[in-house]
Amino acid sequence: MTAYLKSFPILEVNVYLEDIDSPADLRKLSFGELLGLANEIREAILNRVSKIGGHVGSNLGMVEATVALHYVFDSPVDKIVFDVSHQSYAHKILTGRKAAFLDDSQFKTVTGYSEPRESVHDHFTIGHTSTSISLACGLAKGRDLLGGKENIIAVIGDGSLSGGEAYEGLNCGAKLGSNLIVLLNDNEQSISDVNGGLYDHLTELRKSNGTSANNIFKALGYEYFYLEQGNDLEALIGLFGAVKNVNHPVVVHIHTRKGRGYALAENNREDWHWFPPFYLESGEKRRKVTGENYDTLVADYLLKKMPDNPGLIAMVAAVPLTIDLKKANRLKAGRQFMDVDISEQHLLSMAAGIARNGGTPVVATFSTFFQRAYDQISQDICINSLPVTMLVRNGSVWAGNDVTHIGWFDLALLSNIPNLVFLCPTNCEEYFAMLEWSLGQRKHPVAIRIPRNGVHHASGPVACDYSELNRFLVTKKGTNVAILALGDFYQMGEDLASAIKAEFEFEPTLVNPRFATGLDADLLLSLAKHHDIIVTLEDGILDGGFGQKIASFYGASKMKVLNYGLRKEFVDGYNVNDLLEKYGLTPRNIIGDMVRLGFLR
Amino acid sequence: MTAYLKSFPILEVNVYLEDIDSPADLRKLSFGELLGLANEIREAILNRVSKIGGHVGSNLGMVEATVALHYVFDSPVDKIVFDVSHQSYAHKILTGRKAAFLDDSQFKTVTGYSEPRESVHDHFTIGHTSTSISLACGLAKGRDLLGGKENIIAVIGDGSLSGGEAYEGLNCGAKLGSNLIVLLNDNEQSISDVNGGLYDHLTELRKSNGTSANNIFKALGYEYFYLEQGNDLEALIGLFGAVKNVNHPVVVHIHTRKGRGYALAENNREDWHWFPPFYLESGEKRRKVTGENYDTLVADYLLKKMPDNPGLIAMVAAVPLTIDLKKANRLKAGRQFMDVDISEQHLLSMAAGIARNGGTPVVATFSTFFQRAYDQISQDICINSLPVTMLVRNGSVWAGNDVTHIGWFDLALLSNIPNLVFLCPTNCEEYFAMLEWSLGQRKHPVAIRIPRNGVHHASGPVACDYSELNRFLVTKKGTNVAILALGDFYQMGEDLASAIKAEFEFEPTLVNPRFATGLDADLLLSLAKHHDIIVTLEDGILDGGFGQKIASFYGASKMKVLNYGLRKEFVDGYNVNDLLEKYGLTPRNIIGDMVRLGFLR
Repeated sequence: MTAYLKSFPILEVNVYLEDIDSPADLRKLSFGELLGLANEIREAILNRVSKIGGHVGSNLGMVEATVALHYVFDSPVDKIVFDVSHQSYAHKILTGRKAAFLDDSQFKTVTGYSEPRESVHDHFTIGHTSTSISLACGLAKGRDLLGGKENIIAVIGDGSLSGGEAYEGLNCGAKLGSNLIVLLNDNEQSISDVNGGLYDHLTELRKSNGTSANNIFKALGYEYFYLEQGNDLEALIGLFGAVKNVNHPVVVHIHTRKGRGYALAENNREDWHWFPPFYLESGEKRRKVTGENYDTLVADYLLKKMPDNPGLIAMVAAVPLTIDLKKANRLKAGRQFMDVDISEQHLLSMAAGIARNGGTPVVATFSTFFQRAYDQISQDICINSLPVTMLVRNGSVWAGNDVTHIGWFDLALLSNIPNLVFLCPTNCEEYFAMLEWSLGQRKHPVAIRIPRNGVHHASGPVACDYSELNRFLVTKKGTNVAILALGDFYQMGEDLASAIKAEFEFEPTLVNPRFATGLDADLLLSLAKHHDIIVTLEDGILDGGFGQKIASFYGASKMKVLNYGLRKEFVDGYNVNDLLEKYGLTPRNIIGDMVRLGFLR
Repeated sequence: MTAYLKSFPILEVNVYLEDIDSPADLRKLSFGELLGLANEIREAILNRVSKIGGHVGSNLGMVEATVALHYVFDSPVDKIVFDVSHQSYAHKILTGRKAAFLDDSQFKTVTGYSEPRESVHDHFTIGHTSTSISLACGLAKGRDLLGGKENIIAVIGDGSLSGGEAYEGLNCGAKLGSNLIVLLNDNEQSISDVNGGLYDHLTELRKSNGTSANNIFKALGYEYFYLEQGNDLEALIGLFGAVKNVNHPVVVHIHTRKGRGYALAENNREDWHWFPPFYLESGEKRRKVTGENYDTLVADYLLKKMPDNPGLIAMVAAVPLTIDLKKANRLKAGRQFMDVDISEQHLLSMAAGIARNGGTPVVATFSTFFQRAYDQISQDICINSLPVTMLVRNGSVWAGNDVTHIGWFDLALLSNIPNLVFLCPTNCEEYFAMLEWSLGQRKHPVAIRIPRNGVHHASGPVACDYSELNRFLVTKKGTNVAILALGDFYQMGEDLASAIKAEFEFEPTLVNPRFATGLDADLLLSLAKHHDIIVTLEDGILDGGFGQKIASFYGASKMKVLNYGLRKEFVDGYNVNDLLEKYGLTPRNIIGDMVRLGFLR
């Protein structure tokens, strides 16, 4: 091994790991051997993440704590719940899944999150933050109701303590009156910087070596333990041993080093929170990203616009890189940027407040994380009709394919909220025209799906004004079949139109609906004159989505409507093309359906 | 005035209030006169709530603090955000809306919540808890971006501090670096009892007169002030004066008496949190509730079932009366009951944990509050396919008609979540059969809408087993027209069927779909044989709901589908019959549509 691994002695790989198939095997090792094992685990993690990407920093930081947890506690009888579960790699290695880290051909046998289908040591499929204490409260209460005796451990940290549910869990857990161990992995970091008052308090606790009179955990009713050396295996084992089988709720606060053992990750904790495949020696990405991307384009756009628009503010909850607001860009934006830590509910309500007081908030996060704030979007923003612009990233089949991070539910979730205008652009120019329009108006809450199927450019001018709501755009006037292709599936609509024209010698009509939140009744009625068939395409689940509204609109008429989109199901780690094929989302299949139904011949 | 008002000297009504049309008028009064005014406000509140019902306890407790706020601060330039806004009655009285409390004919001119359309002193329509600090953070940030100087005050308390968003707001607000005043109204109470560790901490702060070294607000970065005499007008004015124009975030913790001034409400704070119309002298309800109701029926059912099912647990977030779990019933249930305070996210995740560890959780809350936990239902419960039973109360047009509490969005919200089984019973026996089935199975997350259109009884036996999902039930076999009438609209379906039969001399088919989360493809295909028309009826918004799925199913066929349901819009204070008429939800209108379309003649 080479210089990139600096913080621990280099050992021959897998001397110890070879014999570890379950946590029980750990207890056969001496303390010195456990240290060696920790190094092997670190190398196994680096082997995997350097080749297929993953959460680097927090997993490297949690190696010793995870070894100690499994040394002291008796999993799966004792139950460990990893918050977000993105820092469960060492846990996976120790619970029968090491091959997925050591053997490149087996990487795909495990996900990057805890997964009960993989192992009895995992109790939930988890991917969103701040739920671990609540889930652990539930495990503890279930145990107490049914007379169990096991330890229940929630492992939280790496930013997730700022999420409100963590506090709700702490509030409730404090009074359970039985065993509940909250292990706080404090690595001084969220995904990006830490910002809120909580983090100053954690600093106060660290600086006082846990002795500060002011202590939020004690305030909420927990016995509290602090360990400054959160990567010290011996100390961790001692501490966990001391709290094992406690009969009341405790918080064990350990100070770990994010990225521990891989110098690059230690020194740049934000970038190395999650990292794509890279060369271990240099840290260089294996795949160079070239060409345009929407993250950078939107960051440039906002930064350019800010000086003349003092009320404009870009807001994120811990994921500024979502729209390329890396440190340099954040400094440029100054007070016109805000990262509220992981707290999506607060993020959206605060945006409502800013809009109410004259500001122009742009909120960006992942489709899957907007789910956390449905109520705030509905109540604070939409009931109040406040001009908040929401940029929905990864709302697409072409985005993250972890089951917990699927982004296709946003259309069904958000498009049925009254007063919201949900725009689905079909190319780059249209996206920015929609954004520009949204920022210039004060009447509507607006969500815009950031395109995810590549940066397509418009072939001609795009509309600047979207204030006449729900006006669909006919982009190719034809007959017989009208294809309504929403957002990212517009290009599929183009392909379908071309394929029909080529094969059946007529030109179908192609429509860019632009709006997912309402129907263009005039256009739909006019289509009835020269069309018999409507095909809808949407990059979202069919249930509750766009196409079903079209089907309902034409329900009493002669018009035939075929809805194409994704299915209402949780799929994990899918391949996009396979999934599109499975769901019949190819021009060939759609034409096949129409032929089979006798609509095309 | 009489003996029911015990805590303050009785004055002739409206000597002072008469001259108060805006907060500025307050400053013309002497201190003694302000005290008199406070009494008049209290009587005005009692006048309204005793006649039309409302939030009694917290409003009586907040009278002095509200007078002091408006005396010291300069609303609407200074902006006050009332959390939940159910304790803003005194604020309404002081800001030009006193007639809605004094003049019985004008009660309906104001809502029970803050409402910008009523007054420039209200900044948001608010009805869900724990958002005030986040909204205030937004107002403060908007001010700072645009160069304003006003004070921003969030008034929180009466239970809402346990909601995670309050903590997210505190975390963020601590670091805003400018004026932000969080007024904590601590009345020792949530809606029901207080339960979590937070409340012990508030007790610690009260008992130490705010001097406890441990202080969660200081921990999070706030300057902190405590006032034990939270109903002492002079002290309140002094304290608010001291924090006016502060240049940093502060928490002002005041200890008030819930129900203050009305002995019954002071002595039974849970029952008097919200109270229906009552006689002031006796506290007796004006309308006696007689006959069966689902709250009591389900409480009786659960309490009866608990002794033999130690894993069964009834869970609520601060609203145990939702299912009649009043104190006596809670004592009976013992550890098989849990109130997690206001914290819906935690509630649902914790239920997932209980189910994972073998327990059988039944979670009950209002339709509108499930919105807070969409993400937890989707991720923790449904991705994990955990047997959590969710009882959705007020999911109906016949329930609460405040815009923030509309319950009709649940079908569109929940029915599009994969793995969830959403059941809509049509009568009492079916409801309990569904509940019994849900509690006996371990495969599915189940939501059940508690009927809201009266306790209808089944005319014959109902199905016990719902494990074959998405099987619709044909209750009347007919021809030509098939009516699919979901849940609470089933009786409307019966009426429609009868009206068609009477007028058109054929018997339509009537279907009880039972499941809102999937289609019975076999049945739908078989209907195509002897039917041309499908009518769907649902007590939820059409967009994203049940009927549109049916329309999509038949989209490529000859079947005509007419969807009837509620519209995607926010309406406030509606009259049910007017709304049903407006939405065309009457047998007469539906028949009219079919005649107009030529489907019936």
